Amino acid sequence: MRRRLYDQDHEDYRQVVREFVDREVTPHRERFDEQHLVDRETWLAAGKQGILGVAAPTALGGGGLDDMRYRNVVVEELARVGAASVASGFSLQDDITLPYILDLGTPEQHERWVPRMVTGELIGAIAMTEPGAGSDLQGVRTTAVREGDDWVLNGSKTFITNGISSDLVIVVARTDPGAGSRGFSLLVVERGMPGFERGRKLEKVGLQAQDTAELSFDDVRVPAANLLGTEGGGFGHLMERLPRERLSISMMALAAARAALDWTVEYTKERVAFGQPLASFQNTQFELADMVTELDVLQAYVDASIIALNEGELTVVDAAKGKLLSTETQKRVVDRCLQLFGGYGYMLEYPIARSYVDARIQTIYGGTSEIMRTIIARDLTGLR
Amino acid sequence: MRRRLYDQDHEDYRQVVREFVDREVTPHRERFDEQHLVDRETWLAAGKQGILGVAAPTALGGGGLDDMRYRNVVVEELARVGAASVASGFSLQDDITLPYILDLGTPEQHERWVPRMVTGELIGAIAMTEPGAGSDLQGVRTTAVREGDDWVLNGSKTFITNGISSDLVIVVARTDPGAGSRGFSLLVVERGMPGFERGRKLEKVGLQAQDTAELSFDDVRVPAANLLGTEGGGFGHLMERLPRERLSISMMALAAARAALDWTVEYTKERVAFGQPLASFQNTQFELADMVTELDVLQAYVDASIIALNEGELTVVDAAKGKLLSTETQKRVVDRCLQLFGGYGYMLEYPIARSYVDARIQTIYGGTSEIMRTIIARDLTGLR
Amino acid sequence: MRRRLYDQDHEDYRQVVREFVDREVTPHRERFDEQHLVDRETWLAAGKQGILGVAAPTALGGGGLDDMRYRNVVVEELARVGAASVASGFSLQDDITLPYILDLGTPEQHERWVPRMVTGELIGAIAMTEPGAGSDLQGVRTTAVREGDDWVLNGSKTFITNGISSDLVIVVARTDPGAGSRGFSLLVVERGMPGFERGRKLEKVGLQAQDTAELSFDDVRVPAANLLGTEGGGFGHLMERLPRERLSISMMALAAARAALDWTVEYTKERVAFGQPLASFQNTQFELADMVTELDVLQAYVDASIIALNEGELTVVDAAKGKLLSTETQKRVVDRCLQLFGGYGYMLEYPIARSYVDARIQTIYGGTSEIMRTIIARDLTGLR
Amino acid sequence: MRRRLYDQDHEDYRQVVREFVDREVTPHRERFDEQHLVDRETWLAAGKQGILGVAAPTALGGGGLDDMRYRNVVVEELARVGAASVASGFSLQDDITLPYILDLGTPEQHERWVPRMVTGELIGAIAMTEPGAGSDLQGVRTTAVREGDDWVLNGSKTFITNGISSDLVIVVARTDPGAGSRGFSLLVVERGMPGFERGRKLEKVGLQAQDTAELSFDDVRVPAANLLGTEGGGFGHLMERLPRERLSISMMALAAARAALDWTVEYTKERVAFGQPLASFQNTQFELADMVTELDVLQAYVDASIIALNEGELTVVDAAKGKLLSTETQKRVVDRCLQLFGGYGYMLEYPIARSYVDARIQTIYGGTSEIMRTIIARDLTGLR
Repeated sequence: MRRRLYDQDHEDYRQVVREFVDREVTPHRERFDEQHLVDRETWLAAGKQGILGVAAPTALGGGGLDDMRYRNVVVEELARVGAASVASGFSLQDDITLPYILDLGTPEQHERWVPRMVTGELIGAIAMTEPGAGSDLQGVRTTAVREGDDWVLNGSKTFITNGISSDLVIVVARTDPGAGSRGFSLLVVERGMPGFERGRKLEKVGLQAQDTAELSFDDVRVPAANLLGTEGGGFGHLMERLPRERLSISMMALAAARAALDWTVEYTKERVAFGQPLASFQNTQFELADMVTELDVLQAYVDASIIALNEGELTVVDAAKGKLLSTETQKRVVDRCLQLFGGYGYMLEYPIARSYVDARIQTIYGGTSEIMRTIIARDLTGLR
Repeated sequence: MRRRLYDQDHEDYRQVVREFVDREVTPHRERFDEQHLVDRETWLAAGKQGILGVAAPTALGGGGLDDMRYRNVVVEELARVGAASVASGFSLQDDITLPYILDLGTPEQHERWVPRMVTGELIGAIAMTEPGAGSDLQGVRTTAVREGDDWVLNGSKTFITNGISSDLVIVVARTDPGAGSRGFSLLVVERGMPGFERGRKLEKVGLQAQDTAELSFDDVRVPAANLLGTEGGGFGHLMERLPRERLSISMMALAAARAALDWTVEYTKERVAFGQPLASFQNTQFELADMVTELDVLQAYVDASIIALNEGELTVVDAAKGKLLSTETQKRVVDRCLQLFGGYGYMLEYPIARSYVDARIQTIYGGTSEIMRTIIARDLTGLR
Repeated sequence: MRRRLYDQDHEDYRQVVREFVDREVTPHRERFDEQHLVDRETWLAAGKQGILGVAAPTALGGGGLDDMRYRNVVVEELARVGAASVASGFSLQDDITLPYILDLGTPEQHERWVPRMVTGELIGAIAMTEPGAGSDLQGVRTTAVREGDDWVLNGSKTFITNGISSDLVIVVARTDPGAGSRGFSLLVVERGMPGFERGRKLEKVGLQAQDTAELSFDDVRVPAANLLGTEGGGFGHLMERLPRERLSISMMALAAARAALDWTVEYTKERVAFGQPLASFQNTQFELADMVTELDVLQAYVDASIIALNEGELTVVDAAKGKLLSTETQKRVVDRCLQLFGGYGYMLEYPIARSYVDARIQTIYGGTSEIMRTIIARDLTGLR
Repeated sequence: MRRRLYDQDHEDYRQVVREFVDREVTPHRERFDEQHLVDRETWLAAGKQGILGVAAPTALGGGGLDDMRYRNVVVEELARVGAASVASGFSLQDDITLPYILDLGTPEQHERWVPRMVTGELIGAIAMTEPGAGSDLQGVRTTAVREGDDWVLNGSKTFITNGISSDLVIVVARTDPGAGSRGFSLLVVERGMPGFERGRKLEKVGLQAQDTAELSFDDVRVPAANLLGTEGGGFGHLMERLPRERLSISMMALAAARAALDWTVEYTKERVAFGQPLASFQNTQFELADMVTELDVLQAYVDASIIALNEGELTVVDAAKGKLLSTETQKRVVDRCLQLFGGYGYMLEYPIARSYVDARIQTIYGGTSEIMRTIIARDLTGLR
């Protein structure tokens, strides 16, 4: 169906993004994978090109366009070249860290951090999950105790996207252990603070260019001025931002699946077996038909979610539905596509192979599919 | 997500439809099943209430609202009470037969047939499929030979919805056997024409109140004035109307699945096993969550398809995607719902049981899922 | 793979069964469906032919062959002609009721009941499930109170296979309401006992020739001589017999799925579409290949289970695994087969259509798939 | 169900294998991954321990046990520690290369190669697939032309298991290009022959310790004494050996899936979320139950296939069914297991993560699932 999501402005922006991707990402993608890190220069180039901080106010150097459609353009263009690690890094910056700071930050905090986040000089991260604990906040054992003008932070975090490259990390800590869900606060830890250490980069199934890491905090003195939002309000702050975070995962899932399908259509049209193009075999045709159908249907929902987010209407439950189905669909679609590549699909030089290993985390992070189902079911039945 | 499909006018219309359904359908539904036929009175009452001919011009007695959203309201309200057979009969009238006559008919034909189709006095049907042949027109062996002012029609048709009750039947016949796809024409056969016989009502898995039947034509003399559209243009006429036909099946599929899910949420909240409501078991919760998610995502696509049809933009391929996924989803959802009813789900007095048997035809008629996949794949790959 | 299950004796027996089926079942099958009952004459003919009571001792008139392979022959031959209702009735007799009586009965009870069960003069049933309760015994509210030489039985049961035709019914009742799982006993209620009423035959999705019914007991005086097994030992008696009961469902599931596949291979080879047999389309080929593979793999397990049962080694967990996968596979296979029949698959005159509606109960009765998964998981994890 | 496959001899052998694995494989597994190669010492140790050449005659230094059950023990023990690359290397040696040489070789060839293959001094490989071609022999463009006492071999091969480490490679070449399927022969190319080059090790999704590579042959002069089997009989030689090759993949698939499930049961019992072990959540329980059921059922088939192979009865079709379902099941099971590990499942230090990436090739090599379905369907329908 004719897609009604974008205006001409977005399509113009797409040209800008595409040029950036072709120039700054594609030629280096393989190296990023090997070094398990995206170059700092890439971040700076992205900043220069207006790829970062799109939604930040112009007064703070941003694009001033609080319109998730621009973000979706970036996501789609990165997916087109199979740069999921870059997409996930940028998304952490623009869809998670920046919104936290913009929404919850004081004017002083805005001044300190936002302009340099927009240029790519400051890379952000958020640190919630802890070793041995799951997605639930119950498992948070990191604490911050007020001493004078500082919070003294202790604990460790894991699975932190942008873990190595991040310059500022929003850390979820218990500031009032006896207060249950009202005892969490958000503290911004900055690069170089004594006692803040990065663990090893984690060896992952995919997302090789993502510098996912463990972080540890050993008596880190975080100035009170680095408290983000309300003391004790951390849980609420996290909850409020879930729809945007999960929508951005849905967007990446759909875009990655769409790209995989595009590659597969191309490949099966060129590749000949038993004397005819793979794409003319009925099984191939049916596989492709099922997949494009699932993606087009999903697109209608994700596009509607983008509009709803823009209008402040996307609920936690709506976003959970999108996250659940788009990531599960991505996983299934990319797997079916790989199969159509035969042996080549198993070779990492083919984008489909990397897309396959990149996809596998999607049903897990940002809340597992199981957590999504729980949220959705409780809303539907009113029961727990 | 907040649904943006309907305006207040549609919601007002829903009240009218709901009253009609509660008064004229629900109390008789079981009897309709037993007699394998919806009462003629029900059709007349529907006509009176403005349920039929919504899109027909007011000058011809219709509602003058060429807006598929009104049809969707009817579909949803009939699905709510599990009246799939009635929905399918009315859809044949309003989404298929009437559009043929409105789009292709002469003013004289409009005058002859439309006003009484709007009142329910004339029930329409379309006869394409033949015994032993499939969905492809290649299999059509019914012929019409011009003799003077008449066409002499011979052949037989099967799986005809409204087969017994129909007063006028649009018959697909070969009028020029040597002309391939350019040799088909549409002839309107009317009740009582000599040589036009109804076969037995077919015993089906479900849709018990649907009078699906075989029809036979033995030297039926159809007046030339009953030729609908262009001589030899039948294939094109059929193709052009496929998007609307298939969209209406998608609408019924989604509405039926949604109703089944609603019943199941209700049931599992009330029903207790091992001391707690079924709906509070994690497996039930996850099943329900998966289903509501699939349906909400599908809704976004079907709603967008309705708007596209209204704007004349719904393509054959878009409609095929909707038909494929909505009917496959319906089948899967209704099956999973039935399972949650346990033994009661197998008892026909429970709507879920009837919904299960009704659903099974949906991936077959109006073009099988396999045909849909073929259409979609050819569009995607440019290959056959 | 060459099947190693049967010896020549079993294949000889198959000829006997096949003749019986062709003579006594096939010509009447449709009528059985319409009357929702298998003729009593059919039972008597089955008795005469050695189809009933195969495992009963020869001294009691039985076949003296306590070898589940003979039962599997009967199951396969009935499945071949789509007679699932008959198969389920006979299975109730031979795989459930008779084993209860043989294993738990006194010599006196053996004499009273077994010889006439073998001839088909006495049809058996078992009554466990109650209206509004599920598969768990917790829901049993039927009670039997000892008064003199009688037990006074009160309560009602539902979903009783052979409900109308049964002459003796093994009823699960609480004889000691305070004793928890140790308070159940089995009482044999016989046709004609005052206060024993049959409710209406239940209208079901399928298994039309099965006289599934509700039963009610209103102060039925059951002689103490009709207590089967140990007073208070009912729960244990039920548990011990589950493997055989569930294996017989697995056998029926596999045989029905195999028959459906055979019909489908036949049909798709004969039926031509777009100028070639359906069976030569790649999609058809892949569908058929997937199905025959699943069935052959399942066959290996079910055949091994039959041997294990014969050797007294089939555990509750092993049988649950077989029941779970064979019934879920049957449901899926029969559904895919039906799709390949196109519109004809929806017409009840085609065996595949009946097989489809018959199949749907299989994942529900004899313990739902959810109950099977619970049993299996507890065994695997040691957790509840 | 009690497994009936093994005798005491096999269980004794399992102890030997387990000690070998614990000593020679587990401590080095990670390093093998990093170097994309299993140490030559590991091969020699395996030879010493009786892990290689089990089926080779004792006169040639082998175990003299032509009993696939011993091979299955090796496969199971390697799977237990997640050493899929080692398993696949050894399988290439024992289930493919050695049988070719044993079955087709002359006594002189036996003497030359078998004793050192048994000790691990000679590592074997088979080279069939060519760049840009699929599983079909039609795509073979490698040629060998007879010149005097030599065959002059030209061409290139890809996806060669043991590609770097192999000392002798059975190469499929066209020796009579005009003879169609009767024009292929098998030539044994040995390490060091001039013109025989290894290409780069291929970067793969998984199987990191497997030295899969491209091979090229540029005017390699292969002595006539290295022709294996009949000139022009290559196609037949390949076909005859397919059942064993595919059975060995089924064995590895099942063993890997079983190991993954074992790890997952262990993990979910230990890991606590929301205050209870993961394994006690109903969703976890149902996932585990489904998986163990699928694996137990598959086991019955694979075990029966092993017996059938031993008895010379395993057909190409039987083996194709096993390969199809066991590899598809492995893929699905390992994916579901990974999900239960949450974020840890994406970390390569967890065996489940490696098992996931290792599994993906299984539905592709040794004949894709699509090829398997084609073989099976042709057998079932008699149509192509």
